[in-house]
Amino acid sequence: MPYGAPFLQTIKADPVKHALSVTREQDFAAWYQAVISEADLAEESGVRGCMVIRPWGYGIWERIQKLLDERIKQTGHENCYFPLFIPLSYFEKEAEHVDGFAKEMAVVTHHRLIQKDGRMVPDPEAKLEEPLVVRPTSETVIGAAFSRWVQSWRDLPVLINQWANVVRWEMRTRMFLRTSEFLWQEGHTAHASVDEAVEETMKMLEVYRSFAEECVALPVIAGEKPENERFPGAVATYSIEAMMQDGKALQAGTSHFLGTTFSSAQNIRFQNAEGQQELAQTTSWGMSTRMIGGLIMVHGDDDGLRVPPRVAPYQIVVVPMLRDTDEDAAILDYCTDLVTQLNALDVFREPVRAILDKRPAKATNKRWGWVKKGAPIVIEVGGRDVAGGNVSVLRRDRLYREDGKLDSAIIPKDVFLNQATGVLEGIQATLFAEAESRLLGNIDKSITELDALKAYFDASSKPGWALVQWSRPTGAELDKVVQWLKAEKLTLRNVPLAAEAADGACIFTGAPAVERVLVGRSY
Amino acid sequence: MPYGAPFLQTIKADPVKHALSVTREQDFAAWYQAVISEADLAEESGVRGCMVIRPWGYGIWERIQKLLDERIKQTGHENCYFPLFIPLSYFEKEAEHVDGFAKEMAVVTHHRLIQKDGRMVPDPEAKLEEPLVVRPTSETVIGAAFSRWVQSWRDLPVLINQWANVVRWEMRTRMFLRTSEFLWQEGHTAHASVDEAVEETMKMLEVYRSFAEECVALPVIAGEKPENERFPGAVATYSIEAMMQDGKALQAGTSHFLGTTFSSAQNIRFQNAEGQQELAQTTSWGMSTRMIGGLIMVHGDDDGLRVPPRVAPYQIVVVPMLRDTDEDAAILDYCTDLVTQLNALDVFREPVRAILDKRPAKATNKRWGWVKKGAPIVIEVGGRDVAGGNVSVLRRDRLYREDGKLDSAIIPKDVFLNQATGVLEGIQATLFAEAESRLLGNIDKSITELDALKAYFDASSKPGWALVQWSRPTGAELDKVVQWLKAEKLTLRNVPLAAEAADGACIFTGAPAVERVLVGRSY
Repeated sequence: MPYGAPFLQTIKADPVKHALSVTREQDFAAWYQAVISEADLAEESGVRGCMVIRPWGYGIWERIQKLLDERIKQTGHENCYFPLFIPLSYFEKEAEHVDGFAKEMAVVTHHRLIQKDGRMVPDPEAKLEEPLVVRPTSETVIGAAFSRWVQSWRDLPVLINQWANVVRWEMRTRMFLRTSEFLWQEGHTAHASVDEAVEETMKMLEVYRSFAEECVALPVIAGEKPENERFPGAVATYSIEAMMQDGKALQAGTSHFLGTTFSSAQNIRFQNAEGQQELAQTTSWGMSTRMIGGLIMVHGDDDGLRVPPRVAPYQIVVVPMLRDTDEDAAILDYCTDLVTQLNALDVFREPVRAILDKRPAKATNKRWGWVKKGAPIVIEVGGRDVAGGNVSVLRRDRLYREDGKLDSAIIPKDVFLNQATGVLEGIQATLFAEAESRLLGNIDKSITELDALKAYFDASSKPGWALVQWSRPTGAELDKVVQWLKAEKLTLRNVPLAAEAADGACIFTGAPAVERVLVGRSY
Repeated sequence: MPYGAPFLQTIKADPVKHALSVTREQDFAAWYQAVISEADLAEESGVRGCMVIRPWGYGIWERIQKLLDERIKQTGHENCYFPLFIPLSYFEKEAEHVDGFAKEMAVVTHHRLIQKDGRMVPDPEAKLEEPLVVRPTSETVIGAAFSRWVQSWRDLPVLINQWANVVRWEMRTRMFLRTSEFLWQEGHTAHASVDEAVEETMKMLEVYRSFAEECVALPVIAGEKPENERFPGAVATYSIEAMMQDGKALQAGTSHFLGTTFSSAQNIRFQNAEGQQELAQTTSWGMSTRMIGGLIMVHGDDDGLRVPPRVAPYQIVVVPMLRDTDEDAAILDYCTDLVTQLNALDVFREPVRAILDKRPAKATNKRWGWVKKGAPIVIEVGGRDVAGGNVSVLRRDRLYREDGKLDSAIIPKDVFLNQATGVLEGIQATLFAEAESRLLGNIDKSITELDALKAYFDASSKPGWALVQWSRPTGAELDKVVQWLKAEKLTLRNVPLAAEAADGACIFTGAPAVERVLVGRSY
């Protein structure tokens, strides 16, 4: 283990037979698909590049929405809804922006179908005069609204957000990580000054960082994207980057300072306090269902998903062990009481989410179903538990004992009720600590030569990231760097805000370094 | 007032000068647009047939979502997400369904743009092999998922719901009522038996009825749609119908029993307990942003919108009357304390939603802004109120005294704190009672002849609806009825579940009547 904390921390030696058919070690990509399938998170839809998000996956998204929405509102933003369709002419106004998205836009050209030779076809008589693009992002159409809303400095700032679906026609898709349609929130703001817009950009980056770490238990590195990785049209793009268990980076949220790119294209002008016309400074920032892909690849193990309690649709699942005997009624009563008592508790300043799994299935199948889904705590109750006033408790964050046996503990029900919220807090903290140790332990900060950088990523052990000093090249010089990295299947992730100052030479150009940049493989 | 309770109940005589530039009496359609504009609910987007839903309008939608979602989950449904795009071939499988929607479908034909003669155009090289329809509703794509999910009777029922945007290319659009894109929830379920599917259909109709009445204070008539008004592909369609202040009906939610229409098209089959293959029985049901149009036209008055407290984004708005003097700090402290104390209260089993309006604007402008938006209670606090420990309270449901003056009451702050939740409950009840009296008082049940029916709707006073006896004609006989009604600009609304049994002749055919049907103008 040359690079600090191990990647696959919870893999057990024999004799454990894990719940998934493939392990992370065997084939990480196949394991990822297996988790999505076995945990009922999502499935292929039959529609190219689009997935069906199933109840457990959508339930996690609803939790993400709720907790992130609270933070977006607490920072003064209001939700709106803007059109799905954007006229082509809106895009033509901003060349760099349209260039960035033109290759992957779904275009609506007709508004009616007719029968022809027994098949339905677009009606040639119902061709749109101006084709409509299905939004890949909404800067242009929201900018047009801002230009109506903003007249005077008194109308600023405008602070809005929308929860929506967007479409980017991806050629190679992967569930949650890269799908033609995905769900996200996109914040859009307009300000009277550069300082205020930059402050907003950084504030929302911090909202994303704290949300990812506190709610999704996803430790991230917040920093500025290099020029080549900027959002099309942005003056500066910031990201949070999370480390997956295979060492690759996942960009889990971005915040852009857009300067006057969109305000000049969409004519967002205001009269300042001195009576002069000025262009507004705008920002945008987004987080998507991609976060669920990150959650899987950071917290999943060879038994399936492990969902951090704050974003788990259900935190505690109670499984009655019924046997079609007279005891069943008493077991169900006991379980129903337990769920009622649990739901009356508060954790993370919300009511606990406990449910009774009454489905007609074998209790052990149910147990393993919930283990694969990653419910934080699974409680089993049989006749003996009722008689003894006990419950059998399984924590998803430590499923096995040292000897490889399932770590199921029988404890008095009242003791469990007293401990339950503490256990949930503990699981949340454990998942974060495990992931943070992996992240921090797998960033190599010692590499100063390109040969060493190449060797680091060529190593047979799973590499993490390298934090290297660089001179922040631009233009053609940056292109050369990016080409070299591309040949090694590497990318520049971001310049961490919290990195130490540079004190050496640029690993790429040899010029004096001005800052440190993260290099890694990525999704 | 020949038909019971007056339609425009809150219109005052002079000398009241109302806040909107147009009254309901002058021009109901223009008044509707004025409310939407002056209450900052929505605006034209510049994209044909699509609107921008602004924060106050979207805030009402978020409240509707939250309260309806709770009821959908309480009845055992889980949320999922299905693709925005539906391949044409999915529609071709169900002829009646595709016929119903083909005329208004947005069709995606290309997945890339290129530059041509300085303009962006769809790339001819990137034409889709099979065009994709932007979902107008999701029976087909969800049916395809159900066919994967359902194998055995043990997999049934499947009870799911999705919150989504849908597109129906409307030629004549009207904000909230009829827009090319709208937001809604669509529930979809599959069952092993007809009885169970019918029970589900009726259960969700009842969820809609109780939600509309209890949360949106919208009294409705629940009933079955006649054959000609059925959802394309449905065996039976049920609706809730609300009466607007101009007497027209608005269909505010529908629930469909689909039989095996979609299970045979999409092959949703299961092995029953006896080992035989059977087609599943399916249902679907939806409620949309149209509900906000209904809310406006039922509860709005000549001063703007009146939002029922349960769906108001903010229930109590506190406006400090600042004057740029030394007193301002004390006023702000007093208001901040008040808001904190109000938000610590519970009403309708949720925390009260109170805010402090600190924007830099004149207090009277703010007051009238909130009146137009329809915030249930507006509190104003000036220096004298602080000195006397008072607040000035304005209830949106009774804005004026008998003499036409604004009914603003100065009462001790502590008294208001004790009364606040009761007042909110009272406003909710008042809005419902007013609308219910209008609905029930404006359904004429005495008409037995077509001439009288025609005369009722030709009357210069605003007519409501007529409940008439009919023989439930079908096919060509029904067509004739519908044509006659169409010439009078009338429609069949529904056969109310709660109507008395028939005891006479059909007003249309003269045959013995079998039930009673509602006739009215409609949106």
